[in-house]
Amino acid sequence: MIATIAWTGSAIRILDQTRLPEAEIYLDLDDLDGLCEAILNLRIRGAPAIGIAGIYGVALMALHAAEGSWQGAAADPERRFLQSAQRIREIRPTAVNLAWAVDRAVDCFTAARSRGASLKDAAAAVLTAARELHAADLDASRAMGKAGAVLLKQGSRVLTHCNTGGLATGGLGTALAVVFEAARRGKAPCVYVAETRPLLQGARLTAWELLREGIEATVVVDGARAWLMANEGLDLVLVGADRIAANGDTANKIGTLGGAVAAARYGVDFYVVAPFSTFDLNLPSGAEIPVEQRSADEVRCLGGKYVTPKTAPVWNPAFDVTPAELIKGWITEHGILQPPFDGGLRQL
Amino acid sequence: MIATIAWTGSAIRILDQTRLPEAEIYLDLDDLDGLCEAILNLRIRGAPAIGIAGIYGVALMALHAAEGSWQGAAADPERRFLQSAQRIREIRPTAVNLAWAVDRAVDCFTAARSRGASLKDAAAAVLTAARELHAADLDASRAMGKAGAVLLKQGSRVLTHCNTGGLATGGLGTALAVVFEAARRGKAPCVYVAETRPLLQGARLTAWELLREGIEATVVVDGARAWLMANEGLDLVLVGADRIAANGDTANKIGTLGGAVAAARYGVDFYVVAPFSTFDLNLPSGAEIPVEQRSADEVRCLGGKYVTPKTAPVWNPAFDVTPAELIKGWITEHGILQPPFDGGLRQL
Repeated sequence: MIATIAWTGSAIRILDQTRLPEAEIYLDLDDLDGLCEAILNLRIRGAPAIGIAGIYGVALMALHAAEGSWQGAAADPERRFLQSAQRIREIRPTAVNLAWAVDRAVDCFTAARSRGASLKDAAAAVLTAARELHAADLDASRAMGKAGAVLLKQGSRVLTHCNTGGLATGGLGTALAVVFEAARRGKAPCVYVAETRPLLQGARLTAWELLREGIEATVVVDGARAWLMANEGLDLVLVGADRIAANGDTANKIGTLGGAVAAARYGVDFYVVAPFSTFDLNLPSGAEIPVEQRSADEVRCLGGKYVTPKTAPVWNPAFDVTPAELIKGWITEHGILQPPFDGGLRQL
Repeated sequence: MIATIAWTGSAIRILDQTRLPEAEIYLDLDDLDGLCEAILNLRIRGAPAIGIAGIYGVALMALHAAEGSWQGAAADPERRFLQSAQRIREIRPTAVNLAWAVDRAVDCFTAARSRGASLKDAAAAVLTAARELHAADLDASRAMGKAGAVLLKQGSRVLTHCNTGGLATGGLGTALAVVFEAARRGKAPCVYVAETRPLLQGARLTAWELLREGIEATVVVDGARAWLMANEGLDLVLVGADRIAANGDTANKIGTLGGAVAAARYGVDFYVVAPFSTFDLNLPSGAEIPVEQRSADEVRCLGGKYVTPKTAPVWNPAFDVTPAELIKGWITEHGILQPPFDGGLRQL
């Protein structure tokens, strides 16, 4: 468990992910500017984690409204609250979780006020909603961990991709939650961590998370995964997901598909670990998932220095789509599922 | 064609590859220390290229012996020549081409001397041998280029790995020689360059080589190759080789196998381009090829900064072995071959 984010009573305490793995620095964010800067500059990242940061942020704004503890004067605390919430909502416009969490908090506040609650009581209601969302995230992680841990044997050799741990969520993770639970059960998993170019979330964040928990973790370059499977043997691949279509096709960080193709050739079971919120049953298949291109400089520059010719063309998709046929199962907070998910998921 | 290495009449002129792609700097190496430093610090790299650097180096030492132009005194020029050649031979002990080229040059020198040749004539003989080796390397590249270029159609989309161009050889390359020849024939190939972690030879060197020749080149992270094939379509993969066993199993830079596995899944033809000197018919299969592990810091550090926890375990094999069944053909200076090579190659 990582203290990715916590409520101190008067501030949001986050672990500054831009300083990892060099230094473990916690920041107490107690005003709007500080919170916005932290989300914008990826001090906290990962869709579930910034959703939680956003809802705690709105709770903080409600507290300021109730206590008059804004920086500067505020003639109309309610109006300033709504403006502040709107600003939080728009820090990272593509992060669906952030907008969703902020809307939930604002609805909670306005519902309380329309019932005649005081500003103080409305603020308390928002804080309760924030704590509930955070707790639900941790519950889902624990449930995914339990559902998946049964797949690991003693000393199982697991490959993972990107960062799917506590840093990306409320503190436990998705694919890494399975590893953590297996370790808790004494199975001593041995994890290979794909460094995950271009942004190296595997090397920077996943290796740090696993090693600090005393779990065996070995970093490999993404290109080495096929040879790892062919030569060293591997029991399992566990990855997260950005979006899962109704037929099971799964969008995830670029590089995931290459691991799945290699796993299929070398007979290694490949599992996706994701909560229900990641399933998008309105999409019949992965062909409907749009894949955004990210900045060329993510590939061209390392440590502030160009490693390619400065104007070299780059093809840098944010993620790829692994077809369902390469995936053995989808580990969720309600067990290991198989497509078509329609019936089961819509019911649940 | 790149002026990777040339003989000026009194010095070895090399393109300093450690400064690429930022700057195109040529160094004239006219003494033993400078040559050793350049090879040791990878200012010139690639097995064929350092073989050529080594044989020119011995020619330079023979010239010093003949002209008494050493730095410092030399009582016995012949002895100092042999000591210098031995020092060149040992700069990079795992580079087979370097030892082979130095031995060839020393044999040439001692044979001339035992026939009663003057030091000056013996030095001339070594220089002739060096020029011949360099010319033979360029001839082999041209022949591989011609043999392979027929596989490319107009605008063919080609994926390559690592650096297999003029920088790695006497000036033209292996897999890139095929691309250069296709471009010369007006086929306008479109090349995707895998950046090739950990040392980024694709991003740093291959992209530079292709773009300076006006060939369309797009850099991708190694993990993006499967999605590139699945989503964008690709006609051909062309890679080099470090060592090819009698059955066709091919050792090459780490990451090659992952590309071959993806190519097999997406129906993309995968070719190896290598001169005869790369075939090792004493090895029945790839299982007999030893794969060395390289330094963990190649993966841990980028631009002098740690991106992983400082002591994170790393699995960093120098290359991988692609099984023959994933390879459609072996493009050599004598045409496109198929295993078993035994009969044909031994005859040639």
